[in-house]
Amino acid sequence: MLRGRWLLPAASLALGAGLGAALTSRRAQDDAAEGLLARLPVIPTVAAATAGPPVLPGSGRTELTKYGLPGLAQLRSRESYVLCYDPRSRSALWVIEQLNRETLSGTSERSACDFQEDESVHEYHRATNADYRGSGFDRGHLAAAANHKWSQKAMRDTFYLSNVAPQVPHLNQNAWNNLEKYSRSLARSNKNVYVCTGPLYLPRMEADGKMYVKYQVIGKNNVAVPTHFFKVLILEKESGEIELRSYVMPNSPVDEKIPLERFLVPIESIERASGLLFVPNILKKTSNLKAITAGNKR
Amino acid sequence: MLRGRWLLPAASLALGAGLGAALTSRRAQDDAAEGLLARLPVIPTVAAATAGPPVLPGSGRTELTKYGLPGLAQLRSRESYVLCYDPRSRSALWVIEQLNRETLSGTSERSACDFQEDESVHEYHRATNADYRGSGFDRGHLAAAANHKWSQKAMRDTFYLSNVAPQVPHLNQNAWNNLEKYSRSLARSNKNVYVCTGPLYLPRMEADGKMYVKYQVIGKNNVAVPTHFFKVLILEKESGEIELRSYVMPNSPVDEKIPLERFLVPIESIERASGLLFVPNILKKTSNLKAITAGNKR
Repeated sequence: MLRGRWLLPAASLALGAGLGAALTSRRAQDDAAEGLLARLPVIPTVAAATAGPPVLPGSGRTELTKYGLPGLAQLRSRESYVLCYDPRSRSALWVIEQLNRETLSGTSERSACDFQEDESVHEYHRATNADYRGSGFDRGHLAAAANHKWSQKAMRDTFYLSNVAPQVPHLNQNAWNNLEKYSRSLARSNKNVYVCTGPLYLPRMEADGKMYVKYQVIGKNNVAVPTHFFKVLILEKESGEIELRSYVMPNSPVDEKIPLERFLVPIESIERASGLLFVPNILKKTSNLKAITAGNKR
Repeated sequence: MLRGRWLLPAASLALGAGLGAALTSRRAQDDAAEGLLARLPVIPTVAAATAGPPVLPGSGRTELTKYGLPGLAQLRSRESYVLCYDPRSRSALWVIEQLNRETLSGTSERSACDFQEDESVHEYHRATNADYRGSGFDRGHLAAAANHKWSQKAMRDTFYLSNVAPQVPHLNQNAWNNLEKYSRSLARSNKNVYVCTGPLYLPRMEADGKMYVKYQVIGKNNVAVPTHFFKVLILEKESGEIELRSYVMPNSPVDEKIPLERFLVPIESIERASGLLFVPNILKKTSNLKAITAGNKR
């Protein structure tokens, strides 16, 4: 394919690697807006990406987007979460859930769920179970399955591979699992907990003194392995106060004897590194916001 | 900051690097929809990201997005292009321009333009001129300045750092410049040429046999240095036929004696690697599409 004769030898290694894989003709279905999202005013985000070119009446530049916009935010709304997909990394940018006493109760069974491809994502940009096989990484839930015992469908929806990222098994099964359990315990002692989870790809300095982002990709679809994960907890207290707790863990084995509060980071750090913003949105809803970091945690 | 006492020693190197930099309290202006975009039906994309949480009347899950969505597509429409910003890399995902005989004619002067921060981007996610200073990289235009002689404002708009990525000077000034010139020559001999340009971050195999994406980041804002650049040309011929030519060049010195057609790649390769889609959008407008690769180029 790309290693063909029209590529420079010098360029073909790097090109062939990233651009390779067999081409197929099947195209994804339109991004069907489903579930929650179908009732959201944000639906034009999705619609605009698939509904053909916008028309600009009366403008000399009407034709600029005649052949469409090559990519926009890919929102997915499911029973248990709203997710923004990142087609380049084959995983989510962020996933939001709402936890409270109701969503934690129920009898849904994890054993009735299987990891499944998200067919709403174009196959060029979709992770498959085969990508994970033999990779040494777990299929790490972003929105956790055990958060959604209230509905078998809600739990099953957490098994879409769009809600999953390659995670070091030790982390997934120990410290990260503890953070998920802690989120649920907070949901039992507060009115609501909004949980936003996502991957990070953080730079570090190398021997040449320069900063580099480096991460593995797995499988034939090059699914990105995050260097870290973040989890932002927005606690709605019975008093009306909003409390923010934001965590970052490296995607590597973490001793579960280390207290979770050691992984608290200032929310601004996550905002800078992820390209996301939390505080401005929250401040639109409340002025009664308290950010918990290790220094002020009770 | 993040190197504080609550971080694991093991985690602090990687965390501190990516999450660091001084926190400031100033918040970005709302993403003002301006120019072309203000007249597009896609405007809810931007509006949804800033206009507070969507309301879901009559749904038991109405509150899931109560505190907003942490990030959505950041479209910018300017006199000369429509751009989708990637706040994580501090640069664009893609930029589209429309070139034709009219946009190429005019007397606008490059000397009247200066590179400028894009203040419509939140300062956490914005590249600055200081980030480039001393980095060894050029501020490489995505939408090229010389494509927009028709209007001084259109040319000036190409100097926003959101339309710029760190580019190896030799590439910027030689082979890539030749590709831009070639785009303009095609615009003179066709009805219209739509040009879509963007960065790529391609994986390559390392000594351990695994695939990694690795790229440098520069400046205190960690502006991502692409490993490659793509340019997709959608040619609208006088005959009505649509012709597609898609190029990838590595972000490294490229001998300008190598013919440009050697950098032609199948569009699917760019679609897979970038997370973007071109062909489905184009096929909504025409069935008369011809893709030019080295094999079938005249």
